[in-house]
Amino acid sequence: MSQIHEPGKGRGGEAGTASLSRRRFLSAAGIGAGVAAAAPLSAVAARAAAPDPNIVPVPDWTKTLGVGVNNNPYGVPSKFEKDVVRREVEWLTASRESSVSFTPLYALDGVITPNGLCFVRHHGGEAEIDPDKYRFMIHGLVDKPLVFTLDDIKRMPGRVNRAYFLECAANSGMEWRGAQLNGCQFTHGMIHNVFYTGVPLRAFLDAAGVKTSAKWVLAEGADASVMTRSIPLHKALDDCLVAFAMNGEALRPEQGYPVRLVVPGWEGNMWVKWLRRLEVGDQPWAQREETAKYTDLLADGRSRRYTFIMDAKSVVTSPSPQAPLKHKGPNVLSGIAWSGRGTIKRVDVSLDGGRNWTTARIEGPAMPMAMTRFYLDFDWDGRELLVQSRAMDETGYVQPSKAELRKVRGENSIYHNNGIQTWLVHGNGETENVEVG
Amino acid sequence: MSQIHEPGKGRGGEAGTASLSRRRFLSAAGIGAGVAAAAPLSAVAARAAAPDPNIVPVPDWTKTLGVGVNNNPYGVPSKFEKDVVRREVEWLTASRESSVSFTPLYALDGVITPNGLCFVRHHGGEAEIDPDKYRFMIHGLVDKPLVFTLDDIKRMPGRVNRAYFLECAANSGMEWRGAQLNGCQFTHGMIHNVFYTGVPLRAFLDAAGVKTSAKWVLAEGADASVMTRSIPLHKALDDCLVAFAMNGEALRPEQGYPVRLVVPGWEGNMWVKWLRRLEVGDQPWAQREETAKYTDLLADGRSRRYTFIMDAKSVVTSPSPQAPLKHKGPNVLSGIAWSGRGTIKRVDVSLDGGRNWTTARIEGPAMPMAMTRFYLDFDWDGRELLVQSRAMDETGYVQPSKAELRKVRGENSIYHNNGIQTWLVHGNGETENVEVG
Repeated sequence: MSQIHEPGKGRGGEAGTASLSRRRFLSAAGIGAGVAAAAPLSAVAARAAAPDPNIVPVPDWTKTLGVGVNNNPYGVPSKFEKDVVRREVEWLTASRESSVSFTPLYALDGVITPNGLCFVRHHGGEAEIDPDKYRFMIHGLVDKPLVFTLDDIKRMPGRVNRAYFLECAANSGMEWRGAQLNGCQFTHGMIHNVFYTGVPLRAFLDAAGVKTSAKWVLAEGADASVMTRSIPLHKALDDCLVAFAMNGEALRPEQGYPVRLVVPGWEGNMWVKWLRRLEVGDQPWAQREETAKYTDLLADGRSRRYTFIMDAKSVVTSPSPQAPLKHKGPNVLSGIAWSGRGTIKRVDVSLDGGRNWTTARIEGPAMPMAMTRFYLDFDWDGRELLVQSRAMDETGYVQPSKAELRKVRGENSIYHNNGIQTWLVHGNGETENVEVG
Repeated sequence: MSQIHEPGKGRGGEAGTASLSRRRFLSAAGIGAGVAAAAPLSAVAARAAAPDPNIVPVPDWTKTLGVGVNNNPYGVPSKFEKDVVRREVEWLTASRESSVSFTPLYALDGVITPNGLCFVRHHGGEAEIDPDKYRFMIHGLVDKPLVFTLDDIKRMPGRVNRAYFLECAANSGMEWRGAQLNGCQFTHGMIHNVFYTGVPLRAFLDAAGVKTSAKWVLAEGADASVMTRSIPLHKALDDCLVAFAMNGEALRPEQGYPVRLVVPGWEGNMWVKWLRRLEVGDQPWAQREETAKYTDLLADGRSRRYTFIMDAKSVVTSPSPQAPLKHKGPNVLSGIAWSGRGTIKRVDVSLDGGRNWTTARIEGPAMPMAMTRFYLDFDWDGRELLVQSRAMDETGYVQPSKAELRKVRGENSIYHNNGIQTWLVHGNGETENVEVG
C-alpha cells in the first residue's frame, strides 16, 4: 500500500525507458523549476519554464493538426483499443444464432458496461424490429387485455432510471469441474451492468387489471426463438421494468431493441428481449427454457427448477489471465462483485489462495442488484500469488468456495456457479486460471 | 397525471392503427383469456392461449432466424436510430479542427451519456496518442519533478469511480441575445455526463511534494492547440481526477485518450484532454484560453476572469423542437439538471411560461456535480404550452431567468449562460425555441 514515489521503475522495457527519461528529467527540470520560481509567471515565462524538449520531447502529436470534430458522428474507441471486444468461444455452440459472446471484463473498469461491449446471448438470432411496428400486449387473467405501441410505453407515467447487473445463469458454468477457460472474459464475461430507463411492469399490470386468481406471468420475446419464461407475479409487481433505453440511449438491437424486460437480480434468460407479450396466469408455464434448460441437475438425478436469483459473486478482473502483472512494486487489484439479493456490503481479497484475507475498497456507487467495483492497492515483490475474491451482500450471505458448492450441488450443474475464482500469478507476472482447495 | 387506461389512443396515424388493433384485440383476447383460465396452463395450453395471430399477427421478425452473436464484436446502435448522432452548426466555426459537435440530448434519457454521443470541442483537432509512448509530467514548485507512464498512473493507489457532468462554458452562449437555435441539441448540447475512473490529482501532487509557496497549477494538453489552463491549487487538491476510463472503458480519442483531467463542476475547457503536464506555480498563468477567451465581457467593458464554476442549470429535453409532442392525453416531460456547486435538490417545471410551477420527479441517482434526470407526467389537451424548467441546488441557488442574467451581465457574454430555457409547444405538437418575459 505504499505511495508511488518512484514511478516508472519496473521490469518492463517501456517502464525502463520511462525510468531513464525520468532521471534525465529530474536534473533538467531542477533547473527549469528554479527559473520558473524566480521569474514572473507570465504566459511567456510559463512557456520558458516548460521542460526542455531535448529531455522530454514535445510529442509528435502536438506538432500535427489533429482530425476535426465529428469525424465520427457516433464515436468509436481508439484504434489502440481494437482488441477490447466481445469474444466467442468457438467450440461452445453449434451455431452463432444460438450462441454467446463475452464481455471483455479484464479491460474494463468502473461500474458501467459500455453498450458496445455488453455480452450477447441469443437463442434464435437478433430480431430486427421496426420501432413503428413494434407492439407489446398484455393479456390472460386480466380485466382488460391491452396492446401498447412504443410511443404508448414512453407515455406511461412513472418512468424510472435504475442500474442493474444482468448475469446469464450459465456464467462460469464451464468451471464446475475445474479451471477450464483462461480469462475472466470467458469464465465470468456473461455479465453486464447498465443503467436502464423504463416503466415499472406493475404500471402495465395495473392498467390491465390483474385478476385475483393470478399468480404468475409469462414473458415472451418476438425473436425467432420465441423465448418464453414464467415469472412469479410478486416479482412482476415488485421491481421489473419494461425498458426502452440503456446507458442513456435506445436499447441496442442485440439487447432487445426496442423493448426488453428487466428482472433485477434474477437470471438473464428471464430478461426477455424484443418483449412481445405478457400473459397473466395462475401457475408457471413449464416452457422449454425452464424445464429442458435453466434447471440445475443435482448429483442424485433430481433437478432444481425455477432457481431465479443470482447469488452473491465476485471476480478479480485485473490481474487475470488476459491482464497479467507487468510491474513489481505498487499495483492496483481491480474486481467486480454483485448480488441478486441486494447491495454488496463487503469484498475480501486473498493473495495466497484463501489463507489470509484483506477487505478491499468498494469504490463508486454500490447500488442494489448492480455491479460493484472493488480495489486493493498492493505491493508485489515478484512472488507467486493465488488471487481470490469473496463477496458478501446485505443479507449476510457469503460467496462460497467451489468445493462448498459442489458438496451441495454435485458436478452436473451448468447454471448458478457463484464459487470463488482463483488466479495464479506466476513470478513473471503471467496469470492463469487454476483451482485450489 | 392520470393513468393510461386507453393506450394507443392518439391523433397520430400510427397511434390510430394501434388503437384499432387494440379494439380488435380486446374482443379476440376476451375469448383467449377465457380459454386460458379454464384449461390447464401447460406449455401447450399457453400456446393455445396466445392471441389469435389473425388479430395481432406474429411479426415478420419472429418468422426469420436473426443475425448471430458477435456480428459486431463492438456493438453499434440500431439502424432505426441512425439520426441520433452528434451534430455540428455549420456556420459556427471556421474550421473543423477548432469546432464543436453537440450531444443529441433530445433523443437521450436516463443519467449517463453514451461515449459515442458525448459532445466534442477541439481547439487543434484530435491528438492521436500511442498509449505506450504517453507521458504525464508534474513539475514547477515541487520537491521532486516526476514523469509517469500510463501504466504508472494505473498503478497509483487510491483509484476512484465518479460520475460528473462536463459542460462547455459556451453552452447556450448563442442564446444571450434571444432564441437562436431550434433544438436542445444545439442550445444545450455542449454537456455530457460520464462515470470516470481515475486517480485523484492530489496523489500526484503529494508524490511530487508541493512547495509551500504554491497556489496554482497549470494543466497542459498534448494536442496541437497545446491547451493550457490555470487551476487554483485548492481545487487541484480537492476533487480533480487524472482519468483514464469513461463509462467503464478507455477514454475515447476525442475525449483525451489516454488521459484527461477531470475538474468537477468547473467549465469544460479546464478538463484538459491528452493531459501532458502539470506545472505548479504561485499565480495564474494568464494563458490565451483564460484571457482572450473564456472570460465574460460585461456591459461596461470590463471582463470577469477565472469564472470557473458552472452554476445550476436545467433544460427540458422532451418535448423540445427535435422531440415534438405527438399525442394528446398522457405524456412524460423529461429533462436534465446539473450544478457545479453540488447536488440538484429540486426542479420545478412550468407549462405556461413561468406563471405556475410544479415540482418535477427527480429520477435515478442525484449525485453531486452530475447530470440529474427529472420527469413530469402530464396530460396534454392540445393547448399551446410554454415549457420551462428551473433547477435548485443544495446551496439554495435557483436558476435565473435570462432577463435576470442580462440585468447583471449585459448582452456581450458568450460564456456561463445558465438562464431558464423556454419551448413553445404549438397545438399541433410542433415545438420551437422562444423567449418570454
